[in-house]
Amino acid sequence: MGVLTVGSVALDSIMTPFAQVRDVLGGSATFFSVAASYFTEVSIIAVVGKDFPKEHIRLFENLGINTKGLEARDGSTFRWAGAYGYDLNERDTIETRLNVFKEFKPILSEEHRRTEYLFLANIDPELQYSVLQQVESPRLTALDTMNFWIEGKREELIRAIGCVDALIMNDGECRQLAGTHNIVKAARRILSFGPRILVVKKGEHGALMFTENSMFSAPAFPVEDVFDPTGAGDSFAGGFMGYLAKIRETSEKNLREAVIYGTVMASFCVEKFSVEGMLNLKNSDIEERYNMLREVTRFGE
Amino acid sequence: MGVLTVGSVALDSIMTPFAQVRDVLGGSATFFSVAASYFTEVSIIAVVGKDFPKEHIRLFENLGINTKGLEARDGSTFRWAGAYGYDLNERDTIETRLNVFKEFKPILSEEHRRTEYLFLANIDPELQYSVLQQVESPRLTALDTMNFWIEGKREELIRAIGCVDALIMNDGECRQLAGTHNIVKAARRILSFGPRILVVKKGEHGALMFTENSMFSAPAFPVEDVFDPTGAGDSFAGGFMGYLAKIRETSEKNLREAVIYGTVMASFCVEKFSVEGMLNLKNSDIEERYNMLREVTRFGE
Repeated sequence: MGVLTVGSVALDSIMTPFAQVRDVLGGSATFFSVAASYFTEVSIIAVVGKDFPKEHIRLFENLGINTKGLEARDGSTFRWAGAYGYDLNERDTIETRLNVFKEFKPILSEEHRRTEYLFLANIDPELQYSVLQQVESPRLTALDTMNFWIEGKREELIRAIGCVDALIMNDGECRQLAGTHNIVKAARRILSFGPRILVVKKGEHGALMFTENSMFSAPAFPVEDVFDPTGAGDSFAGGFMGYLAKIRETSEKNLREAVIYGTVMASFCVEKFSVEGMLNLKNSDIEERYNMLREVTRFGE
Repeated sequence: MGVLTVGSVALDSIMTPFAQVRDVLGGSATFFSVAASYFTEVSIIAVVGKDFPKEHIRLFENLGINTKGLEARDGSTFRWAGAYGYDLNERDTIETRLNVFKEFKPILSEEHRRTEYLFLANIDPELQYSVLQQVESPRLTALDTMNFWIEGKREELIRAIGCVDALIMNDGECRQLAGTHNIVKAARRILSFGPRILVVKKGEHGALMFTENSMFSAPAFPVEDVFDPTGAGDSFAGGFMGYLAKIRETSEKNLREAVIYGTVMASFCVEKFSVEGMLNLKNSDIEERYNMLREVTRFGE
């Protein structure tokens, strides 16, 4: 059955110090799906406008991504425009036009309700909660969020967080949500909201994973030419959830492997615009980066 | 013969959001020496004023630190005052009074010239270079520096860097010295200045080590109650160099172990003011944290 994701499919316009593009394929569900497609079957629930290029649908389908839940409505596709500074760490949102995404109210089909692995990409926590109410008996649910919801819909967000198994957020968001700077303390507080797994994405500093009794510190992949960081977090989530949906067992060992596969997929994502860095990968490309991450972390053996 | 360090011994006044202290034992050579003393013999070259409390000399001597090179001159000891904000990452220097340290011109004794392991803590790169000219045939030399010298004495610094085996700096300083944000690129550029080992300290994000052919990504120790970060970098260097002076061989394996012991010593340092967190440690305390770092990084076995 693979993994189901609910999120945005968008057209992004991006400026980096090196280049710029207009209306390329983007959105949280897009990056997630493409990354996860290397590990398992993926189904996508999202909404686009009638202007959404057919070639993007074909791209999804060529990767085996099920687009039955990708609704095309009258109106324009969600558009996001952003610009990165020289160090590629800070980004400014230039424009957000929600368009048809404004009315997005995901209703799951019978088939989708029976999904075993669910990833709720960064959308309104009320929608995340509503999707969680619709799935019947998932094996693993996860959600991502952002500062906008932490500030604007804190209670709704904490309610949704209380219903998922795993939370995947960046470190700044964790500190903000927990109200404390120390990341170990923040993690403990966030786990007390309900989830049993917290994955903290730290960009160029790697990732941390916390459960009630364990902590895992994962390195970043040493990417020398970061070209466009857009979608790195969702690609990470795609590798993480995709691997777990494939392996179907969330032991500490498997969760750690999943974090590493997430790291690998994010490293491919940031090397090109849109999802291009993640297209046409061979399994050996993925395994090569996995092995390199083992090599750069090994000690005391 | 152990390790020799040349740097500052100071009296620090520190404000954190939790507490404050006045005129406590500080200085780069101090933190380095105390950390390194758990691994090997340590000799210190520094200068203090006649006002320097005898109890601090006794503290060094009780740890077996050789203070023959710690000169007491007429005048006042170097004083530094700093304040940390709530997140303990940003610090403001409130006051720097160099006092007798202003005239510091390290002249090595016959014995010191024969040292095999040398750590040049953060001092004027011209002094670092002069010390490097005085040592006869060291097995391993390392230096640390700061933004002040990168900006003010860039050429002198690069000349000193060209004469050491290892460079130990924080990530911001590496980016500044190399003139590039990407840390992998920055490392490559810095290694081209001459040293064969670059250790990049990243505080709560751990450390990276680069050689011409290898990269190592070390986690931070998950300290839940960071109390005062002052001296963490020098304590890291003390664990790193102390371990290498003990093991007397710089294979990749040993260098990685050294980074981990540096991480462990820094984690003890930040838990209390001054060097207090590093006093009265048992070997088992150090090994316990070493093992915990293995546990939090393990995957794919």
